[in-house]
Amino acid sequence: MSQPQYLTGQPEAIQDFLSKFDIFLFDCDGVLWSGDHLFEGTVATLEMLRGAGKRVVFVTNNSTKSRTDYRKKLEGMGIPATEEEVFGSSYSASIYISRILPQRHPELKQKPKVFVIGESGIEQELDSENIPHIGGTDPAYRRYVEPSDYTRIAAGDPTILDPEVGVVLSGLDFHYNYFKICLAYHYIKRGAIFLATNIDSTLPSAGALFPGAGTMASPLVKMLGEEPLALGKPSQAMMDAIEGKFKFDRSRACMVGDRANTDIKFGLEGKLGGTLGVLTGVSTKQEFLEGDARPHFYVDKLSDLLAKR
Amino acid sequence: MSQPQYLTGQPEAIQDFLSKFDIFLFDCDGVLWSGDHLFEGTVATLEMLRGAGKRVVFVTNNSTKSRTDYRKKLEGMGIPATEEEVFGSSYSASIYISRILPQRHPELKQKPKVFVIGESGIEQELDSENIPHIGGTDPAYRRYVEPSDYTRIAAGDPTILDPEVGVVLSGLDFHYNYFKICLAYHYIKRGAIFLATNIDSTLPSAGALFPGAGTMASPLVKMLGEEPLALGKPSQAMMDAIEGKFKFDRSRACMVGDRANTDIKFGLEGKLGGTLGVLTGVSTKQEFLEGDARPHFYVDKLSDLLAKR
Repeated sequence: MSQPQYLTGQPEAIQDFLSKFDIFLFDCDGVLWSGDHLFEGTVATLEMLRGAGKRVVFVTNNSTKSRTDYRKKLEGMGIPATEEEVFGSSYSASIYISRILPQRHPELKQKPKVFVIGESGIEQELDSENIPHIGGTDPAYRRYVEPSDYTRIAAGDPTILDPEVGVVLSGLDFHYNYFKICLAYHYIKRGAIFLATNIDSTLPSAGALFPGAGTMASPLVKMLGEEPLALGKPSQAMMDAIEGKFKFDRSRACMVGDRANTDIKFGLEGKLGGTLGVLTGVSTKQEFLEGDARPHFYVDKLSDLLAKR
Repeated sequence: MSQPQYLTGQPEAIQDFLSKFDIFLFDCDGVLWSGDHLFEGTVATLEMLRGAGKRVVFVTNNSTKSRTDYRKKLEGMGIPATEEEVFGSSYSASIYISRILPQRHPELKQKPKVFVIGESGIEQELDSENIPHIGGTDPAYRRYVEPSDYTRIAAGDPTILDPEVGVVLSGLDFHYNYFKICLAYHYIKRGAIFLATNIDSTLPSAGALFPGAGTMASPLVKMLGEEPLALGKPSQAMMDAIEGKFKFDRSRACMVGDRANTDIKFGLEGKLGGTLGVLTGVSTKQEFLEGDARPHFYVDKLSDLLAKR
């Protein structure tokens, strides 16, 4: 495995690095900001890249936010961005369901109905691809299980198990419950495809960890003995969806991230021309230099790229 | 591995089998009944055993029912039983917490407070051992997470994270939610012992499968990368608790069950004098004869034992 090249304080090397790529895919938390704190130089670095004609894409596993929501979050952090520059796991899942699933599963209806475990971000993105869906934020699913549910579900009663559901999509759902898990399980047992927006086990918030989207799917995984196909980083299904949308040359693309085992791995497995690790997040210099997923390049912080020749 | 001895239609062999044991531990569903259907001869067989001076114990992983509840269920099925004859996973957990945990974790308070994910059966059994508890069926925990919860939990605010909690006990909870999982995770990260009444992945009902107690713990397992200590079959912690209560000679005890990989394994690993497989439930004759967990004896159905000499 080759050694990562250190770019901080090397104007010539930075210039050379920048010239290799047309598009930069950014992980956000730990790269552009940390929690609520925007890193100094983030906006200037993004402007420098855009000014040099580079495309920037914000790649997020956050499934609760649509692209519109996430653009607002970026603006709230002080980062100007367009909706077109945002690529989230809910959008990735919607692209997958509408454009890729029909090729892989010709037995499915075109745009099968989706049973959603998740919040409105998923619903908005499914709507943007005109994919029919049930579950999600519908209050009818925010209830406890009733004795009659067992017999109705066991009997496949179409008033409780919609016969048109062909996909179960599991994302972060702050309102998940026993009833939704029962329905999702039975939809999958009846043949629905099991997808997850992403399988992150934890969600960072307020400086601590909370249950992530991956924990929503875990009761189903335990019952089924089967993992969902995940549409977020580091799944290559997400890379395929990004490429399908932006139509770029992978050899001229660079993934930027703070975590070796998700972000950098995502870029390496996607055979991108480059990966850039930043030391403002989770992974340490030692992980970048000695770990299993080593970036091609690394910097102390993203804004070190401003010191180009 | 020795071959199981077939007892059906062998009066001499049955007589010999019965003479070897003083106590019989019974799995229930698949042995005494199936779903709502009581097997013919179940009551007569239990009466025959009691009449011969044998002790019978009904061993159940059902964590939602206390011993009192379960005795009522047995009576409802037409099986006379005393509360003393019932041993459930919630009771097993309570015995473990009150009698065994203080020896293994001398740093814990005697009878530490328990954060319960589960229904009233667990609460009743904790009460029977005078163990303080929070969570469970308390309506205050049946709510959605609020933005302020994240900061309060992250800060370890004692009005949301009770500093006296030393154990998280996870059982089947039809009202589980994101908030309870958040709290359980943080209690464990702060040092609480992670226990589960049982880890069955599914719950049979109405002829179909629904999420079992093991699915309640699975989001926590995913976040923590750590399995709970389970107090139900086939965990030997349950066998230790049963032995602690009934004070029997293991060489004179027989486990009766329909599932090789849980019931029979439970008896074999507990080094009981005998295990009896019945063919009225999940495991097949082939599993008993060729599987990894082979019973010492097997019968077509439990009531075949009535044909003794």
